[in-house]
Amino acid sequence: MSNNPFRIQPPQRQPRDLRKTQQQQQLPAVDLKIQMRMKNVKYKIPVLSGKGGVGKSFVSSNLAMALASSGKTVGIIDVDFHGPSVPKMLGVRGQVLTADDDGINPVNGPFGIKVVSIDFLLPKDDTPVVWRGAIKHTAIKQFLGDVKWGNLDYLIIDMPPGTGDEALSVAQLVPNISGFVIVTIPSEVSTLAVKKSINFAKTINTKILGVIENMSYFVCPADNKPYYIFGEGKGKKMAEEMGVDLLGQIPIEPKIAESNDLGEPFFLKYVDSPASKEFINIAEKVMKLMESNGK
Amino acid sequence: MSNNPFRIQPPQRQPRDLRKTQQQQQLPAVDLKIQMRMKNVKYKIPVLSGKGGVGKSFVSSNLAMALASSGKTVGIIDVDFHGPSVPKMLGVRGQVLTADDDGINPVNGPFGIKVVSIDFLLPKDDTPVVWRGAIKHTAIKQFLGDVKWGNLDYLIIDMPPGTGDEALSVAQLVPNISGFVIVTIPSEVSTLAVKKSINFAKTINTKILGVIENMSYFVCPADNKPYYIFGEGKGKKMAEEMGVDLLGQIPIEPKIAESNDLGEPFFLKYVDSPASKEFINIAEKVMKLMESNGK
Repeated sequence: MSNNPFRIQPPQRQPRDLRKTQQQQQLPAVDLKIQMRMKNVKYKIPVLSGKGGVGKSFVSSNLAMALASSGKTVGIIDVDFHGPSVPKMLGVRGQVLTADDDGINPVNGPFGIKVVSIDFLLPKDDTPVVWRGAIKHTAIKQFLGDVKWGNLDYLIIDMPPGTGDEALSVAQLVPNISGFVIVTIPSEVSTLAVKKSINFAKTINTKILGVIENMSYFVCPADNKPYYIFGEGKGKKMAEEMGVDLLGQIPIEPKIAESNDLGEPFFLKYVDSPASKEFINIAEKVMKLMESNGK
Repeated sequence: MSNNPFRIQPPQRQPRDLRKTQQQQQLPAVDLKIQMRMKNVKYKIPVLSGKGGVGKSFVSSNLAMALASSGKTVGIIDVDFHGPSVPKMLGVRGQVLTADDDGINPVNGPFGIKVVSIDFLLPKDDTPVVWRGAIKHTAIKQFLGDVKWGNLDYLIIDMPPGTGDEALSVAQLVPNISGFVIVTIPSEVSTLAVKKSINFAKTINTKILGVIENMSYFVCPADNKPYYIFGEGKGKKMAEEMGVDLLGQIPIEPKIAESNDLGEPFFLKYVDSPASKEFINIAEKVMKLMESNGK
């Protein structure tokens, strides 16, 4: 009998490759064109999720609509290479980007949101495509530096999933990030994912505005009571443990899946729904965080 | 004005690297030791999901319990490197594998299920570990060839997430796969993920037993009616379109998240719950599919 029945050793924990990160940081990550376009954008907010399937793009798109409906000028960049779904969630899928001598014209979304997405560059069918690193890098640089963003109050950046090197290099291209918003769902693994996101933010010396818990509860039409179907109070507990703000809790509504599948903008169509009202609350918190400290 | 404002070209669709797959297939994928251990295992069923976050490990673990509660001898191998959670879902997390001269003793789970997991080899804390390809390959070979499985009716294999090369090489190590079970959730992307799984099965000439839709609906305690919170009828429609069987639809129950988080076996603890009853239905369908054709 032995407690180590395998000849193989379990893998060693590998520290993050700090050298690589430092090298990346030494690169002139922000070029002059990006600097020029971005200087008229007041607040730049990347939306992260440590884990797939939590509704990051849904939250990004609907937060953008909530900010725009509050009278702010808003842009959104979708650099989620694994499934760019912002255009669908804003109801502008199938539109194309145009350009003139001054640069690229973003697509005009609901509430006047300026939309640029990796999806606008893809072939129409659903065949998975493979992006090579250099192409991704060029695309993101152009999204930031060649698009005529004009004066914006908020630029929401729907980040690549995860918190690996890919998300890191996207984040490093954006000058003066205001802070990250992290999307999670009620589940034990989400705590680990949020930890990763906090480490990620530390890596590039950027603060975290807070966490949005998606799929928090379901309000049953029969009794109008909330049912915490994936667990109650997890988002709050996790935020307290991690020392980050819980910006809001988005309920599950059947109309959300329906809108997203149909390619209709949920917030615009169901502005009085509980989920939309929570997006308004979150937008107000974000505006207060950004605009009250005069930054 | 131009319709092609970017100097960069969208990436080209890349065909699956068939040469590599053929090379892998020419390898003597099944060694003699695996052959020997596996010849007393009647049915080998890998559980796949094209997409993360759909509850693959929950379904694998509870299907295993449903089969075992029906009087079958069952084993389960957990080779989900990104988050091996079968031990937690079976309530045996923290146990260790032991060995003697004849081989490795699997951990004894609920209903006498024999459990082997990547998790039993990991350090106790939650630090993410990096598995190199060669170590993974060795671990899987030992799970199949060195473990004293004995006579089993069913061996459930909780596969790595996705349908990429990693899942492919695991599947190629298992001799005479009976058929895949695919786990999905009601959402539009799941259709694409199931398509990928079907292609995956074709690649290794293996049939698909069917699809299990997880998180299908929520039965509200107030009126006992099902609410299709992520969309109604999607699993059925998708299965029809794809020409695969829908083996069952698992409802959402708050006790599922609770059990999984606490590390308690859901099926064992709540055997009369609607979800557990559906697992029994699914187990009966699987047994009929496997045992009625005399294979």
